[in-house]
Amino acid sequence: SEYRVAILTVSDTVASGAGPDRSGPRAVSVVNSSSERLGGAKVVATAVVPDEVSRIKDVLRQWSDVDKVNLILTLGGTGFTPRDVTPEATKDLIEKETPGLLYVMMQESLKVTPFAMLSRSAAGIRGSTLIINMPGNPNAVAECMDALLPALKHALKQIKGDKREKHPRHV
Amino acid sequence: SEYRVAILTVSDTVASGAGPDRSGPRAVSVVNSSSERLGGAKVVATAVVPDEVSRIKDVLRQWSDVDKVNLILTLGGTGFTPRDVTPEATKDLIEKETPGLLYVMMQESLKVTPFAMLSRSAAGIRGSTLIINMPGNPNAVAECMDALLPALKHALKQIKGDKREKHPRHV
Amino acid sequence: SEYRVAILTVSDTVASGAGPDRSGPRAVSVVNSSSERLGGAKVVATAVVPDEVSRIKDVLRQWSDVDKVNLILTLGGTGFTPRDVTPEATKDLIEKETPGLLYVMMQESLKVTPFAMLSRSAAGIRGSTLIINMPGNPNAVAECMDALLPALKHALKQIKGDKREKHPRHV
Ligand code: NA
Repeated sequence: SEYRVAILTVSDTVASGAGPDRSGPRAVSVVNSSSERLGGAKVVATAVVPDEVSRIKDVLRQWSDVDKVNLILTLGGTGFTPRDVTPEATKDLIEKETPGLLYVMMQESLKVTPFAMLSRSAAGIRGSTLIINMPGNPNAVAECMDALLPALKHALKQIKGDKREKHPRHV
Repeated sequence: SEYRVAILTVSDTVASGAGPDRSGPRAVSVVNSSSERLGGAKVVATAVVPDEVSRIKDVLRQWSDVDKVNLILTLGGTGFTPRDVTPEATKDLIEKETPGLLYVMMQESLKVTPFAMLSRSAAGIRGSTLIINMPGNPNAVAECMDALLPALKHALKQIKGDKREKHPRHV
Repeated sequence: SEYRVAILTVSDTVASGAGPDRSGPRAVSVVNSSSERLGGAKVVATAVVPDEVSRIKDVLRQWSDVDKVNLILTLGGTGFTPRDVTPEATKDLIEKETPGLLYVMMQESLKVTPFAMLSRSAAGIRGSTLIINMPGNPNAVAECMDALLPALKHALKQIKGDKREKHPRHV
């Protein structure tokens, strides 16, 4: 499998054991069912952390700098409540922003619900790892992945340094 | 009234007395007529400052940190002229960016005029206060508020820490 | 000619002589053919640099701070490969972000190809110079310019400080 994917559920409720992780398993299923369109992708790690910047950053650093996974999806912590800090943790770590991914996720999510405007998702590249925040709602993962799939395989190829993928175009 | 709103007109012309404040009164009227859809909202303060970063920041700090209003709308100073600095003053103060609000304001404003692309509006959360830049054109306030209204009440509820509002969804 | 435009091709391949500059000449042609709609615009400088932050910044600084051109278009270096650093170099230099320009370029480019989401373009104002990143694909320049043209002349007028252009509106 060419691309290694890791999924981080960010939720005080799940981390404390007060509720089940509905988003994490859904994300694993979405990635697996998209594996072919991603050029071969496999979930190699999952974790749950509470809504705390340092805890989120620790896992993102481990997965990108040490384990060198190709893609990290975070789930949750993107809203407007005082505990929502996933975008802030993510922006502290990414070296290059990828605003176009945020644009298409927002564009497609708004077609489903106007509450999509409340997502504060960040996305970007750290080293050879692409990190993308997705909302904690279980349906959001599938919606966001749908928005990204037309170009996500090329994104991952480019991050690996594949020059042939530098200027892909439909003709 | 559940949500306290403050409106800041940023304009050298108005601040110097050289011209009337057309945007401020319009914004008050828009907020008041949207009060029900906002779950009860009332304008509790208005002010006018010139296009100067320090003057803008002083008022934003007072309203968010001391008066703890729920929502601040700034009007004007979002364009490309050398004096337009409202987004820079705002970005210096916000602790969390809210890019989805900017997305929908831009999306809807572009339907009215291509000149909407010249808005450099910023938006974000400072403490328990949501700060949103809107263009100085009197019609822009109504257009931007229209774009935000489908989710603004939930945004304000979330900032207050209402957990039930964490993952609102249309089904 | 009222507006002076400079065009920077960012490409290891072109800079090393390993391939021709297809984007630069196309951009010159696009600007010249848009000159009237831009209120009079003329390309006064072109350059090629490799994908290196310091080399990109040197040229952007010279053109904005010393030569005081009105508009700089950069071509290339906006993708996801390790060498793509044009947005990072640009963001280091701009004093005011212009997110609406990025919005319309993304909106229009996505109508042509979903790979547009892989553009990480930045844009903003430094002093009296507007700097806009465009992808290196030769067609992208024309597509991005098409997106900007409805308001670009007003953008350039505003940066010059023309107050009459502060709140242009279609009625
Ligand atoms: Na859009």
